[in-house]
Order: sequence, then C-alpha cells, then structure tokens
Amino acid sequence: MGIQDFLSSGNIRLDQQLKFVAEVDKMTGVLRHTLLIDKSRRENDAEHSWHIALMCLLFEEYALEKVDIKRAAIMCIVHDLIEIYAGDTFAFDKKANEDKAEREQKSADKLFSLLPPEQGKFFRSLWEEFDAMQTADAKYAACMDRLQPFLHNTLTDGHTWVEAGAKRSAVEARDSVIKEFMPQVYQWVDANIENAIKKGWLKV
Amino acid sequence: MGIQDFLSSGNIRLDQQLKFVAEVDKMTGVLRHTLLIDKSRRENDAEHSWHIALMCLLFEEYALEKVDIKRAAIMCIVHDLIEIYAGDTFAFDKKANEDKAEREQKSADKLFSLLPPEQGKFFRSLWEEFDAMQTADAKYAACMDRLQPFLHNTLTDGHTWVEAGAKRSAVEARDSVIKEFMPQVYQWVDANIENAIKKGWLKV
Repeated sequence: MGIQDFLSSGNIRLDQQLKFVAEVDKMTGVLRHTLLIDKSRRENDAEHSWHIALMCLLFEEYALEKVDIKRAAIMCIVHDLIEIYAGDTFAFDKKANEDKAEREQKSADKLFSLLPPEQGKFFRSLWEEFDAMQTADAKYAACMDRLQPFLHNTLTDGHTWVEAGAKRSAVEARDSVIKEFMPQVYQWVDANIENAIKKGWLKV
Repeated sequence: MGIQDFLSSGNIRLDQQLKFVAEVDKMTGVLRHTLLIDKSRRENDAEHSWHIALMCLLFEEYALEKVDIKRAAIMCIVHDLIEIYAGDTFAFDKKANEDKAEREQKSADKLFSLLPPEQGKFFRSLWEEFDAMQTADAKYAACMDRLQPFLHNTLTDGHTWVEAGAKRSAVEARDSVIKEFMPQVYQWVDANIENAIKKGWLKV
C-alpha cells in the first residue's frame, strides 16, 4: 500500500502530476497550533489552506486595492505546500522563525522539482509572490492567512496566544497587513485585541 | 467558547461574512469514506476540497475543452459546502443517493442564507454549476472530484471499493466524466480498474 502501488501511465508528465497529487496529501499531517473552532483538535495545513481560499471569495469589498480574488484563492491553495518538508513554523516562536526562510527554500526545491518544470515554476512563483507580500493579490491572500487564525483564536479562548504567552505587540505586528490593506476589517481585529487583553488571553 | 463569543463588528455584512467563515469550519468534521493516502484515517470535506482545488492547477492539458482553471478551482472550494448539513453521501450507496438532491437543496437554503444575499447567490450558483456538470469548468472540476478518490483508492488497497463491495460498472459509471472529458487520463484510470479487479478490490 502507498505510493509504491502507483501504476505508471506510461506518460512521464502524467505520472509526475499524479504522484505530486499523492505527495501533497501529506499536508493533512502538517499540524498548526490553531485549534478548529469546535476545539476538538489542532487544524492541519490542508484544512487551513482550504479555509482561507474560501475566504478570498468573501472579503474583496474591504480591500484598498483591486484584487483578483480567484488568483488570490489559488495562491492560498499553494501557499503552505513548502511546509510538507519544512514543517509549520509557529508565528509566535522567534527562534523557529530565524531559519524559516532557509528551510522553506530547501523544501520548495525538493517539492516543486517533482513536477514538470513549467508547472513547478508556476507553483513556486505563486508561493514566492505570496511570501513577498508586494502585489495586491498577495496582500489580500496574506490578510486571509492572518484573519482566519485570528478569528479561530477569538472563538477558542485565545488558544494560540495563551499557548505562546503572546503580547499585544506581537499580534499587532502579525496582523499589520490587515491594518494596512483592509482597515475596516482591522477595526474588528482591534476590538478583539482589546477584548483578548481584558480576558487575559493576551499580555499587554 | 465558540460562536457565542463572536464580538460584533457593528457592520451587519462583515458580521455575516465572519460568522459564515466560522460556520464552514464544520467541513473539517464531515468525514468521507476515502482514506488519506497514508491510511491513518478517513479524509474530511475540507481536506478533499483543498486537494481537488489544487489538482485544477495541474491537469488542464488533458481537457478536451478550454477550461478556466482558476474558476474550476473556486468551484472545487465550494462544491461540498452543502454537506455541512446534508452530510457526505457515499458514492456507492444507492439508497442514500435517492434523497441526496432534496437534502442538499435544503442544506443550501440554510447555509447560503447566512451570507449577504448577492454573495449567497454567488456561492449557490457555483455549487449548482458544479452539480449540473454542463459547462467545461464544471466538467473539469467534476473530473478532479472523481480522480482524487480514485487515486486514493489505488494507493490504499481499494479501500472504499472493498468497503462498498463495488462492481466495476459502478466505478466506470462514476468516472465516466473523466472518460468523456479527459480520455488520456482515463487510460490510466482504466488500467487501474483492471488492476483492481486482478487484486480483488473490485467485483467484475
């Protein structure tokens, strides 16, 4: 059982594509620190990626620049693939973030080389654009990537903030892209930060 | 904890959108019969939806008609949302499929009415287009929706076929959209059906 049971199609490209589909199923095993909203367990990268891709269809009206929401959605679909080999880096773990870029580059080299070259390049370019946060689509996708765990935290007693002993300033830094790109949504974020401090989920 | 902790933004639209995001997190609890490729557990609807949305970025070259892969991807993101209240209907359970359409319509009414009207309409139209399988984008999305569990079955000892005691004809009927829309990919499907019969995973 497993990938060794893969039956070749006799077409190298198709084999590469199908095996890549099998490989990325490992995203279901990359656990994040965020809890599901029902608090039953930690969410995984596949679930998170789906959730924020869906969010791309909902919040366009709050973006300060024109966004291609379908393009932002596919960016969300691929944005965490490199964690298959690099692992999830906890946003509030300073030490782990030091070598994050290097680990993720190595993972990208390994993962995207499984695909036919132009498709590997396409996936990598989407990830790099997301990561650089310079284009409107990437900023929008980044807002979804920050807003989703923020919403989960507000509905799970500040779970990851409490776990990390996080300070207000760390959350504000993490969510600054929302403040800049979707100020109307940030008003809600800001009110929830205040509430989290009042509840003791976040340190001042 | 939970949705009762939701802090109103003071903006009815934004509240509806954020609460919808929280509600659809329930997709992580809708279990399918398909196993993850590592066989550790059954996959859920959020994982499946993410997986097939990603596949939309890979198989365009085999489609007989011109496809908008980004549009097909967002169709995949929303295609199973109605299962939040209707549940997953096992493809090989004839009885459960009898009232599937009715259950899913009711679920769609309930779920999409949580959104601002024009957004609810947009989500519903994507789901209906997917379900009707008439447009090129919907046929392509449907191919991904069939090819993914097929691949999983080939790599997990025919898990759902064995569980259902499925016949070759049932699998062929289920995957006929691949045969019609992506004949080159279907050659690989067909070879795997032969192999599954040889292994005893499928009945003749």
